[in-house]
Amino acid sequence: MTTFAIVGAGMMGSAMCWPLSDNHHKVRLVGTPLDEEIITSIRQERYHPGLERTIPDDVEAFSFTQLSEAIQGADVIIGGISSFGVEWFAQTVGPFMLPEVPVLSVTKGLESKPDGDLIILPDALDSKIPAPQKGTIRFNAIGGPCIAHELAARRQTCVVFTGKNLTTLEYLKQLLSTPYYHIWTSTDPIGVETCAALKNAYAMGVGLAAGMMDNAGPDGLANMYNPQAVLFGQSCYEMRKLLEVMGGGIDNVTWLPGAGDLFVTVFGGRTVRLGMMLGRGIPFSRAREILAGVTLESVEIITRVCRAMPKLAERGKIRKEDFPLLLHMYDILHNDNKVQIPWERFFYQ
Amino acid sequence: MTTFAIVGAGMMGSAMCWPLSDNHHKVRLVGTPLDEEIITSIRQERYHPGLERTIPDDVEAFSFTQLSEAIQGADVIIGGISSFGVEWFAQTVGPFMLPEVPVLSVTKGLESKPDGDLIILPDALDSKIPAPQKGTIRFNAIGGPCIAHELAARRQTCVVFTGKNLTTLEYLKQLLSTPYYHIWTSTDPIGVETCAALKNAYAMGVGLAAGMMDNAGPDGLANMYNPQAVLFGQSCYEMRKLLEVMGGGIDNVTWLPGAGDLFVTVFGGRTVRLGMMLGRGIPFSRAREILAGVTLESVEIITRVCRAMPKLAERGKIRKEDFPLLLHMYDILHNDNKVQIPWERFFYQ
Repeated sequence: MTTFAIVGAGMMGSAMCWPLSDNHHKVRLVGTPLDEEIITSIRQERYHPGLERTIPDDVEAFSFTQLSEAIQGADVIIGGISSFGVEWFAQTVGPFMLPEVPVLSVTKGLESKPDGDLIILPDALDSKIPAPQKGTIRFNAIGGPCIAHELAARRQTCVVFTGKNLTTLEYLKQLLSTPYYHIWTSTDPIGVETCAALKNAYAMGVGLAAGMMDNAGPDGLANMYNPQAVLFGQSCYEMRKLLEVMGGGIDNVTWLPGAGDLFVTVFGGRTVRLGMMLGRGIPFSRAREILAGVTLESVEIITRVCRAMPKLAERGKIRKEDFPLLLHMYDILHNDNKVQIPWERFFYQ
Repeated sequence: MTTFAIVGAGMMGSAMCWPLSDNHHKVRLVGTPLDEEIITSIRQERYHPGLERTIPDDVEAFSFTQLSEAIQGADVIIGGISSFGVEWFAQTVGPFMLPEVPVLSVTKGLESKPDGDLIILPDALDSKIPAPQKGTIRFNAIGGPCIAHELAARRQTCVVFTGKNLTTLEYLKQLLSTPYYHIWTSTDPIGVETCAALKNAYAMGVGLAAGMMDNAGPDGLANMYNPQAVLFGQSCYEMRKLLEVMGGGIDNVTWLPGAGDLFVTVFGGRTVRLGMMLGRGIPFSRAREILAGVTLESVEIITRVCRAMPKLAERGKIRKEDFPLLLHMYDILHNDNKVQIPWERFFYQ
């Protein structure tokens, strides 16, 4: 029996309880300061209000005030935080990390350095943890299409564990695989994690089309798939271009991390909800009010990548012409631009 | 003003009337022997029963008995037939083809040679036309996500014109581009056309998941996107592998011809309807009865490619392990196998 400490009791972190519990591991689910209600609900009624589901019996719930107790003796730490919690995670959990305890993260995002270079979260985490731990921790991450609700329902799910060390990845794979949770491994964390981060951005882009249809008024058709498919194709195209810049394998677009994860995110809830609102012509300032309290990873990733672009372009690392969709989304979010898809600038050759 | 003869008055061929008419070209829409009802309806009421829409005023409708008259003096021939009409098209229209009149086809499919080698339809057409024309005709084709209904509604649509001669492609692009019909060109017809054919096969594969959900019974969730996304990812993966075999550019997967067209086809009607029935456990023999009269390009392409595979594998050109989804679909169609997705055999490395 192996002991897992999951830090972050949101949707995705908590959903990991199912494969772990089904494999008879000891699971300690630790809330962040934002998860107090969830932890209380689990302790009192064994019920996860976000997943709307009873948590497996053998999962122990911990408040963030019990962090050290929960992590003590854990064989694996699962990072279940959103990208907004990365600093907190590095500073609060970092001091408890040990070289022999691998970390496996569900967090998606990219950070940028002052020179514009983008870095994936496993590397960002390593740069943020305290000095004694820095460079000694094996950070790994999960990519691929996985809606938390469906994993908790034990729906067939296929994901990619990525990190630099194949032995660690195979160890984690063997611990977490179940008949419904299928795991592939990849030693290209830059490729997998770049896709994982970007799919949140581009799912919003694909959502724009559904919103635009509402706006266009009735024309005898109930749907608008041609434009949506173009946005999906352009998203894959821009992902490929950014992978080239980042040094990740472009083949990632054509399996689980890229097209697979983008597909699921297009159907997966809040990101697309935002895209649809914007497509309908609702300004972002208003949409943000309507979605108050919802974690908008998409806005964060679009903002970070687009703000790094001028520096990357200056240094000759990217051509801005390769990213008309991402840049248009930035203008919608930050310059109050109307949605006006630049079709003719897509697929720049 | 340029004169276009569209041969084949089905959905896609007929939908081409809109951009052509909006660009003030002369359009002659010629039915095949299967299109007599459509042509009669257009002549009597200007109404296309498949598209459920009035045909633009300046389109002239012709019966197949008037083929020679309709093609006489045309500057461009558009092939609007399904893959089942390729022989008819080559033998009946072929004798009227001229080197100075380019052909542009909407047909999707692959054919196989006795040694297992797969060939794209523009090449198949060239091999089937009469001797005087053979080798002299510029065959071009259209790939990318385009539901005919939406094109006829002037929805934003982006497609790829492909052929061997860039000048011809640019000429066609200039004639057909409208503010809603956006055209890219590609001199990689093998890449574009392989994707165009395969998306019909794989859309059926993605449809299996939706059908399986119905079968699994209620578990508190209204959808099943994790498995569907895996099938989408595996479809992209197998497309890439087949492109490598065919010698087409694998970058086609990451824009309009691959991921884009697959996305639209997953929502586009009959192919997915078949996949869902099979996913629900309805045997193919019964599904075929229910869908009597519906053109099933998906069945045709799965059958052709899978029947070529043993020969290609024997010659060392493919690894069958790269195509578990396609081969499973073949077994469902031809060996009455139950749907049992081979998750663990996906993404073979």
